[in-house]
Amino acid sequence: MATPPPASARRLLPLSLGLFQGALLLFFALFVTYDEPSAVATEAEDGTRAAEQLPSIFPLFQDIQVMLAVGLGLLLAFLPRYGLSALAHNFLLLNFSTQWALLLQGLRHRYRHGELRLGLHNVLAAEFAAVTVLISVGAVLGRTSPCQLLAVAFCEVPVYLASEWLIVTQLGVRDVGGTITIHVFACYFGLGVSKALFGTQRQPAHPKETPTPRSDLLALVGTLTLWVFWPSFMAAPCRPGDAQRRAILNTLLALSASAVTTVVASSLLESGGKLSPGHLQNGSLAGGVAIGALADVPITPAASLALGSLSSLICLLGFRFLTPLLARRLALHDHCGIHNLHGLPGILGAAASAVAVLVVSKDTNRCQLSQVDGSGVAEDQGGCGGGRQALWQVTGLAVALGGSLLSGMLAGAVLRLPCLAPPPEPLCFEDSLNFRIQGQAESPGMGDTTEEVALKERV
Amino acid sequence: MATPPPASARRLLPLSLGLFQGALLLFFALFVTYDEPSAVATEAEDGTRAAEQLPSIFPLFQDIQVMLAVGLGLLLAFLPRYGLSALAHNFLLLNFSTQWALLLQGLRHRYRHGELRLGLHNVLAAEFAAVTVLISVGAVLGRTSPCQLLAVAFCEVPVYLASEWLIVTQLGVRDVGGTITIHVFACYFGLGVSKALFGTQRQPAHPKETPTPRSDLLALVGTLTLWVFWPSFMAAPCRPGDAQRRAILNTLLALSASAVTTVVASSLLESGGKLSPGHLQNGSLAGGVAIGALADVPITPAASLALGSLSSLICLLGFRFLTPLLARRLALHDHCGIHNLHGLPGILGAAASAVAVLVVSKDTNRCQLSQVDGSGVAEDQGGCGGGRQALWQVTGLAVALGGSLLSGMLAGAVLRLPCLAPPPEPLCFEDSLNFRIQGQAESPGMGDTTEEVALKERV
Amino acid sequence: MATPPPASARRLLPLSLGLFQGALLLFFALFVTYDEPSAVATEAEDGTRAAEQLPSIFPLFQDIQVMLAVGLGLLLAFLPRYGLSALAHNFLLLNFSTQWALLLQGLRHRYRHGELRLGLHNVLAAEFAAVTVLISVGAVLGRTSPCQLLAVAFCEVPVYLASEWLIVTQLGVRDVGGTITIHVFACYFGLGVSKALFGTQRQPAHPKETPTPRSDLLALVGTLTLWVFWPSFMAAPCRPGDAQRRAILNTLLALSASAVTTVVASSLLESGGKLSPGHLQNGSLAGGVAIGALADVPITPAASLALGSLSSLICLLGFRFLTPLLARRLALHDHCGIHNLHGLPGILGAAASAVAVLVVSKDTNRCQLSQVDGSGVAEDQGGCGGGRQALWQVTGLAVALGGSLLSGMLAGAVLRLPCLAPPPEPLCFEDSLNFRIQGQAESPGMGDTTEEVALKERV
Repeated sequence: MATPPPASARRLLPLSLGLFQGALLLFFALFVTYDEPSAVATEAEDGTRAAEQLPSIFPLFQDIQVMLAVGLGLLLAFLPRYGLSALAHNFLLLNFSTQWALLLQGLRHRYRHGELRLGLHNVLAAEFAAVTVLISVGAVLGRTSPCQLLAVAFCEVPVYLASEWLIVTQLGVRDVGGTITIHVFACYFGLGVSKALFGTQRQPAHPKETPTPRSDLLALVGTLTLWVFWPSFMAAPCRPGDAQRRAILNTLLALSASAVTTVVASSLLESGGKLSPGHLQNGSLAGGVAIGALADVPITPAASLALGSLSSLICLLGFRFLTPLLARRLALHDHCGIHNLHGLPGILGAAASAVAVLVVSKDTNRCQLSQVDGSGVAEDQGGCGGGRQALWQVTGLAVALGGSLLSGMLAGAVLRLPCLAPPPEPLCFEDSLNFRIQGQAESPGMGDTTEEVALKERV
Repeated sequence: MATPPPASARRLLPLSLGLFQGALLLFFALFVTYDEPSAVATEAEDGTRAAEQLPSIFPLFQDIQVMLAVGLGLLLAFLPRYGLSALAHNFLLLNFSTQWALLLQGLRHRYRHGELRLGLHNVLAAEFAAVTVLISVGAVLGRTSPCQLLAVAFCEVPVYLASEWLIVTQLGVRDVGGTITIHVFACYFGLGVSKALFGTQRQPAHPKETPTPRSDLLALVGTLTLWVFWPSFMAAPCRPGDAQRRAILNTLLALSASAVTTVVASSLLESGGKLSPGHLQNGSLAGGVAIGALADVPITPAASLALGSLSSLICLLGFRFLTPLLARRLALHDHCGIHNLHGLPGILGAAASAVAVLVVSKDTNRCQLSQVDGSGVAEDQGGCGGGRQALWQVTGLAVALGGSLLSGMLAGAVLRLPCLAPPPEPLCFEDSLNFRIQGQAESPGMGDTTEEVALKERV
Repeated sequence: MATPPPASARRLLPLSLGLFQGALLLFFALFVTYDEPSAVATEAEDGTRAAEQLPSIFPLFQDIQVMLAVGLGLLLAFLPRYGLSALAHNFLLLNFSTQWALLLQGLRHRYRHGELRLGLHNVLAAEFAAVTVLISVGAVLGRTSPCQLLAVAFCEVPVYLASEWLIVTQLGVRDVGGTITIHVFACYFGLGVSKALFGTQRQPAHPKETPTPRSDLLALVGTLTLWVFWPSFMAAPCRPGDAQRRAILNTLLALSASAVTTVVASSLLESGGKLSPGHLQNGSLAGGVAIGALADVPITPAASLALGSLSSLICLLGFRFLTPLLARRLALHDHCGIHNLHGLPGILGAAASAVAVLVVSKDTNRCQLSQVDGSGVAEDQGGCGGGRQALWQVTGLAVALGGSLLSGMLAGAVLRLPCLAPPPEPLCFEDSLNFRIQGQAESPGMGDTTEEVALKERV
């Protein structure tokens, strides 16, 4: 029987996390307040109604929370004996990363403008930082301890914030849905972590790694939850009005095309025309990843459909051919296939956004484009039109890709520290490593009768 | 061991679906654009605010997507070994039917007005068409191949669009929640398909047809999801304002009465005063089906409650007495009991709408009624008041019922084509027919230990 | 084998429930109408737009319905063989209690102002009454019959309405999120019921009481659903504008701190640094319970974080030390640990609200505070400032605590009536007691193969 890590090592989790929570509290006590009521007064000048309405971002914010806490959590629960851990770790990382991003944002803001006045948009921005962590850890799911996961979050959030600032604010890259800044960045950060953590040793297929129809069903519910609320994820960072409307429709069309194309491609790739549950869980979302960089660009509906189809096709080809190849050649471990869902469609979306910017700027008067999207970014940066903007899109992709891979490998090296209590191989993919499973000596089988396991009281 | 259909037959799914996706793309490329920015400019005349707001339909649209993708999918997952297939097929049909309805709508629009300018309301209308397909296939769940299901969708969507145009636009039937145009239509279309597909052969009870407490639990979660968001389904097609408010409250009351009455009736119908999970899953929603035709009519709260109670009563009586009778006498196979959830309460709701229109028009000044609901339909069609409108309601019901039964039987005849790869009897109700279940030679048991089944890598 | 209650006793459920449904229908027919269209006309004076919008409370209302029907239901489904019953009873009680509260509200309204004009806010107020019932029954989950649960609801709703009127309307206690009026009240009512029902007999740990990883997973999904939508629960009763914005942010921060602190504390309290699923399911929500009484008070963000952390800490300490102590010393049976999730954090929140009112009134000009929150309550009641308001907060807590405990014990005494068909001990925590499980003689094991159990037709 494998020895679990010594208890002393496991004290690191509560101690470090508790310390962090204390530091956050101190920082908030010293430097953070809410938007003052006076802020509402100024708003009231252009109509009292505004002050009395629910923030229009709130329903979108709630949708995104459902995606991150429930949808993504369930999607990761495809491992039959690791569902509880996947869901719980996802939840912990969501909260930790959001708080950590809030703290870092607050520090930057304080350095520049003084006290941070917290609003819903700050929390939303922090959650976007958390998304990168939730995606990245998919590469090492099941073979890492909670301490290691927190270390990933600790390293990734500041790098993401810097990268996002560089790409969007400095380079003026258009990326309203985070195709480049979130998906590509998170994917290659995660792959970097995985490579540096597991080195050149090939991970054998673990017997507990295989999903069952039932765990696949739960994961599919997670996919559907993400699929349904994806348009809200796109609409939230958009300026209300025309751009938001366009982002919603583009996303709907891309996701719909992805869903249908996934069935086509999976049926062709699998023997006997059957479908693979994993293909369905991932491919249906690929269109949402790819459309992010051009959701608010005035492309045609047909372009959204085509991008959605193409991205799910590339995603499934990745699962079928690239993942085994990378595992064989580079000993690259990517447990959830984040390279297929976030990496490949992300690169495709970034490339498409460069093309789209080029085409749209030729079609329309530049001034009109800038007025339509209201961002003014193109005007400031592009100077003489779409060509330069297209170049920035590609530059942004390169920055995200290179920066994340490098920083991810550094983070992965940190994760090799023994004090982070990596789980022993036989206890990988096993809820009992992280949770007190009642009445069971070691690893609980899903099929155990409750009579056998029930000798202690609940909690 | 039963022979699965030959691989050649299974190539039909990806080929036909891929072809369809290509045709859709071509059609969109040639004939569909988004609402022009200029459209926003005209809106802006009556206040700039409107242009800057999130479309007010969007939260309702998202609620409806949750209902269709997650709620309905889970409700169909009551079969313990067919949950993955039920969820996935529901998802595929939702996307295919929506796209197909968009294409058909676009064709009609192009023929009449030129280029289609796509907006969220078009997608919503297309999803309503998809709902009919999702309901209809409930009658043949588990005994059909994906190709057969797509054939149902292919046949049903155009007939639905024609029937909806005839009933609502031409006859002026009031049916804001789709009681007649969606539920009654879909139910009898599905029964027609079932009858024509299975003919006079009685389907023996399949050993895998029996739900377990666990699959019943998931299905109940699906019911609850549908139950919660049903008011949004009613509110979405309503004109904002008074009619929408009324639709929400009427639906809430009807659903609440349904839930309580279902417990009463199920407890009386089952031996020992126990409840039947199937009754709960279906009866609780019957009120929502029935209230659709009169949700925006100014009826009293008591009428909504009464209709909700009555409809769930009729639904459970259908499950208890009518379904076995139909199976015995007509060899009619209705696997999910769609006749009890959609057929009987739909007819009840249609009848109630005729009575309600009659009563309301007596109570209120006609002009006022027409002003209240803002539809103007009654005025155009009814001429001399509620009597004629009541007649139209009944006519609409008859048209929906007759047309759907007939067209359903024709569609069912199409489904008998051997090239659609009907599943062999022993592989019915079995996820392994449609999905690659890892490491398992044939049919995976839910209780199998993962060790036994895990020899291959994930995807 | 244990004898189930005689069928005659089980007829009580449908009969009493049917009678209630009839009485409700009669009452609605005689005394309830909807808001008149004329009401819209008056609204229209200050801008036609208002009349044409979706009620702004509606999205929040839907969020709350998801919490109550799906989230709370799944949270209670942590018992592996009682999930269906937990979900179904939760649903039944939600509907019955809402209807019963609507009826009682209507009676009071009729007595004072004549006919009740039903709006969405009435339904929302009635659902808040229902929440208390759903919380209270957690103390006796699994050991009670549906009739007993309905008796709890029958007793609790009127007492809650009286208590809420006394505490909020008469004493002017600030409690926008129901910390005192809902959580503390419901908790001690439930404990009173449990004590009076089970008396001094200690309940042995039942073999079916132990959750499995899979049932814990579903319960965690319930927790996450509640966690995500909790801010909507706080925002719904707030006046739109500044107070609502503050309530949302305070709740978000408190919940986030709760989630992280729960992991810290659970890891310290459990052996080997593991987490307890039960801790995670409950502790993550403790911050939401505690913040209710001061969500709209202008406290600092740091205060929300601190309260969130502290409340989950107190919740977990309760699970670890207080619950076993109470079970040993007082033979107090609290199956879901409602005392830890609702009682302790509720008392903490009430105390914090007294302190906050005191501090805030010193910091800000009283007039400003009153203007900020717009409630005017402080002005009417507080007279000379925060000191008196703080006193009222404490008084409100005492009233809720004492009143609920007393009335709960009376209700518990009613529950001992044999005609309410208490379940025999061996059939406790067993779905087959309440549901017809197909093809199974007695208690269905979760691992049973469907072949063994499937001999009858579905429904």
